[in-house]
Order: sequence, then C-alpha cells, then structure tokens
Amino acid sequence: MKCKKIVLKQMYNGFPKKSDFEIVEEDVAEDLQNGEFLYESLAISVDPYIRSLVGAGYKRGDTVIGSVLVRVTKSKIEKFQKGKLLVLNCGWRNGGKAKESDVFFVRDDMPALVPETAGLGLYGIAGLTAWIGWILVCKIKKGETIFISGAAGAVGNVAAQIGKIKGCTVVGSCGTDEKVEFCKNIGYYAAFNYKKESGSLDAAIKRVAPKGIDCYFDNVGGSFSSTILRHMNSGGRVGVCGSISAYNETTPVLAPILQPTIGKNELILQGFRLRSHVSNYREAYEDLKKWTIEGKMKNYEKVTKGFENVPDAFIDMLRGGNVGKAVVRL
Amino acid sequence: MKCKKIVLKQMYNGFPKKSDFEIVEEDVAEDLQNGEFLYESLAISVDPYIRSLVGAGYKRGDTVIGSVLVRVTKSKIEKFQKGKLLVLNCGWRNGGKAKESDVFFVRDDMPALVPETAGLGLYGIAGLTAWIGWILVCKIKKGETIFISGAAGAVGNVAAQIGKIKGCTVVGSCGTDEKVEFCKNIGYYAAFNYKKESGSLDAAIKRVAPKGIDCYFDNVGGSFSSTILRHMNSGGRVGVCGSISAYNETTPVLAPILQPTIGKNELILQGFRLRSHVSNYREAYEDLKKWTIEGKMKNYEKVTKGFENVPDAFIDMLRGGNVGKAVVRL
Repeated sequence: MKCKKIVLKQMYNGFPKKSDFEIVEEDVAEDLQNGEFLYESLAISVDPYIRSLVGAGYKRGDTVIGSVLVRVTKSKIEKFQKGKLLVLNCGWRNGGKAKESDVFFVRDDMPALVPETAGLGLYGIAGLTAWIGWILVCKIKKGETIFISGAAGAVGNVAAQIGKIKGCTVVGSCGTDEKVEFCKNIGYYAAFNYKKESGSLDAAIKRVAPKGIDCYFDNVGGSFSSTILRHMNSGGRVGVCGSISAYNETTPVLAPILQPTIGKNELILQGFRLRSHVSNYREAYEDLKKWTIEGKMKNYEKVTKGFENVPDAFIDMLRGGNVGKAVVRL
Repeated sequence: MKCKKIVLKQMYNGFPKKSDFEIVEEDVAEDLQNGEFLYESLAISVDPYIRSLVGAGYKRGDTVIGSVLVRVTKSKIEKFQKGKLLVLNCGWRNGGKAKESDVFFVRDDMPALVPETAGLGLYGIAGLTAWIGWILVCKIKKGETIFISGAAGAVGNVAAQIGKIKGCTVVGSCGTDEKVEFCKNIGYYAAFNYKKESGSLDAAIKRVAPKGIDCYFDNVGGSFSSTILRHMNSGGRVGVCGSISAYNETTPVLAPILQPTIGKNELILQGFRLRSHVSNYREAYEDLKKWTIEGKMKNYEKVTKGFENVPDAFIDMLRGGNVGKAVVRL
C-alpha cells in the first residue's frame, strides 16, 4: 500500500520553517509476519520535545518522531485486531506497518467519555508528564501554592487540573489574554499574561502568589524561571520538564544564575524524562481515569485538520498558538 | 574590660576593600549574670558566606559575623568554666561577653590530635558543610565520580577527603598550580587549574572525568557550573552550597541556562544551608572524629596572624589565596 510520511528536508536552524519539512511517499508491503500489523493514522501529536531532539541524533531525511493515534487495518497480533485504536510512537505518518513494541497506549485504557485523541493529550505524553512532575517529582501537597509556566499548554492544563484536585492553589503564566481566560475556567486561582508584565514580572508573581511559591512546574526555562525561583519558599521543589525558551535558539541562552537562589532558599530542582518512569504509567492512568470519571478532569485540545498541515501545526504550537494539546486530525 | 571588634565602615560595593572595615573599641562590663561568661579570642574564621550576607540584613556599623575560637576567662556557666575552649558565633571580636546560646562547638568534642583551630575548619562550618553536602544531599556512593569546584578550599578539601573515604573517584578544579599539587596530596584522583583551561574547559573535564560526573559539589556557581552540568551522568546529583562567582558582582551574573541539561540528564540540584541540618551535626562529628582518629582525615588550614589582619585575610580568601581553611590567629 502507498503511505505518506513527513521527513526533515533540512536541519532547521533556529525556528523551524515549513520548508524544513517534506512529505514523502513510501510503499509498505502488506504481507505481515507474526507480531506485526498495518494501520491508518487518525491523528498526529505535535509536541515541543520534537523540536528539542533535532541535533540529538536526527539527520536529513529522517521521519519526524511523534505519537500518532491509529486504527489497526490488518493484524497478526491477537490482542490488536482490525479496528482497534492505538497510540503508536511511529512518527509523522498517515499509515504504515508496526509491531507491538511501537504501541504506546491502547484506547481501551481510557474512559469512553473522552475523545479518542485524548490518547495524545490527557492520556498521552502530556498528561503523563504533568502527573509525574507533580506527583513523583515535586510531591505537591494540599494547601501549597504551585506555579505552572506554559499554563494553558498541553502539559500545563493537565498539571493545573491535577493541582486543583490535590487541593493546591494553582497559579501560572501564559502568553495571551485568551489563555489567561482559559486558565481561569480550568481551575487556576490566578494567571497572568507574561508578555504584558515584562517590566514588572516580580510584581505579577507577587500578585498571583502573595505567600510565595512552593512548587514550580518549569516548562520554559531561561530568564523567566530565574525570576520565578526568587519567589519560591524555603524547601520549594521544581520539576524541570522542558525549556521551550531555548529550543529554537542558535546560540546558548543566558539567564541570571540560579545557584544563589537555590542555595539561599534550599530549593530542589529535578529534571525528569518520561521514559525513566515507565513503571509508574499504570498508576498515573488509574489516577487520570478516576478523575475523568468523577468529572474533575477534562481533555483540552486544539485540533488542526489535514496531514499536509502537520508542520504548520507544529510551528504554530512552538509559537504558543495552542490552548490545550495541539493535535492534527487526518 | 576593653575589647575590640571589627565593624562594617561602609557597605561594600563589589569586591570588599580593607577600607570597608574598621576596628572599634568597646567597654565590656565584667559582672556576669547566670548563664554568661567572658572570653578572649584565640582565632577568627573568615568564610565566603560572610561576603554573601552583606545586603541581607547587614548595615553600617554592624560587627562582621563569623565563628571565633575563644578561651573562657570568667564564667557563670558550670560546664564552661575558665580555660574551656569554645567556638562562638560572636563575630570578629578579640574578646567579650557571651551566653550559652552563642556556643557553636566545644573543643572537647574533637580528638586531641587536631589543633584547636580545627574547630573553625574540619570541625567547623566548613567540615559540616562538606559532610552534609555529600552524605545528606548528594548521597555519594562507592565507585562514583564526584567533582568538587573550589577543590583546595575550606569546604573542598574536607569534601575531597570524605569522598576518598567513601570509595569515590574524587576530581576537581581550583585556581592555582600550587592548589593542584595540594589536591593530589590529599586524595584527589585528578584536579586541574581552571584558569589555565579556560579555552578548553570541556576537554579538561573529560580528561579528569572520562566516565562522566555522578555528583557535583558546587561551590562556585555561574558559567563554570553550567559547563560541569553538561558532563554529568543521568541521575546525577548536585549539592548547591555556595556561589562565590557571584558574591562580589554588582550586577546579576548571567550564565548559559541550566534547564536543558537538568532535564536531559535528569539531574537533581539541591540547595542547602547548614542551619536546616542542626539535628545531623552529632552524626557528622562522630564520622569526622572516627576518620580523624583512624588517620584518614586531616585539618588543613592557612593561618594569618594578628587581629588587625582579619579583613586582609578575608579579602585574600575571597581572591582564592588560601589552601585549606583560612583562619586568623590572634
């Protein structure tokens, strides 16, 4: 069968451009070995981590990595028969052949009341990242003030919902007034548009977190985070997840050094990657499921349509164009 | 009785100068209430943390803080009779009146085989800091490669000895060739003079730590530490103790941001202050004592003489002039 994939046409330099990507056709042989299956893609996830991996092993002509929601069309795996919905780590493809180890998530593991694409958002990498950051890394506690940068984003919106459920005062920052409104609707105690507060970031932080910040979900890094750290209470914990402020820069990004603040406020900063916590996924899914069924948690997403628009959706997401998880439905 | 103290004549701006300090005479009434004693000072400790506290509560005319080794001359406390040697948190004074809560350490708690001034070094703030950083914060393990910046300094030399005792490969950096030599003699596997490696710091680090760094005792902060972090192994731990690179700057110090490295290498950075670990001092002293008696651990110090030379010794220490703990004997 004929399938399409999106490959890196050239290594992008700084902010990715549409012309850095190329759609390529490929022939996929339809005969299957045991343990293989064919699929058609239904939706593709575009995530910041995809940007960060260029330079770390990517080369020209490689298929762009990413999670994809697929439907099985033909199978030699008993548990994944035709029609089954799965999330695969297969990269930006509209269909193809895969094996069991490519399967990241099975739709049956989510409550029926969320859309299938929640497997790319709330029940995907974004939701797991939020759960691991707060529950395993920062160990947020009832009554604490917790701050989320990238407050309305894919990870941020789930982190906020978890924080609210855990009895925390959830505050955060984002880049548009529309996002600030969204934040208020999903449980934030307060949020601000950092682009309007650049002259008085300290004042904005004090306004939303007058008692100081106990935990910080750092999705952005850079100078912004240096400022947040100065407002943290003694013994505060920081989950270092992403550094979107640095992904698209071609020279090293400088910011006020963190060590004086880390030392003085006895902070703990901990970096984490999803793949080191695979053994905790089950526990995370159980929590997310329970909260979804109880009506305390929702999947928020921004949907773009069309395989050919995946690069545009990716670039838009890096620019902060998404409220909730950015996905592309084919 | 007439005593002398050293006060801050003006708030120093950038690097401290001798003229920022002033010796002032004071009259100390010799009559004692219960729980008080008189003392004469034998030696004064000069430490980096003293620099960092200016701006955080100091004002003109305040006596400079610091630990002092004293001999009790008259007492209304049964356990601290005349002749007893104590370390007090009394600031830069050549004598005075104190009470039990000013006592930091009792000479009787050290083995007789170390000099009395070890109460300011190996058994003082420096030694406790080294012990807490490695044992409680980083939890160093046998076989790990551990890196110490400020390798030959007050904290660094003790940290190195502890690392060696714990079966680690101890490596580090310092600022003179003389210090590199000293490092080799106290148990470092390798050390380098960072001032000679500024063009190829990465190469120097790879040379001394070819298998990467598992734990890092960060005494300096800044750009140097940003580079060290990039050479850390996954799951590495960093004890953030001091930031001497920033103490004397008048504008915020910038360095390449840490978050991408913290995230990618899943590092844990933890700031710590001594006063939060008072309940562990006893355990620390027991370890240090045991190691001293077994001949595995020594007190290294650089001694200056004369009360009037305390400011000079302080400034010299900030410039990196000391090998081991900088103390001033009166």
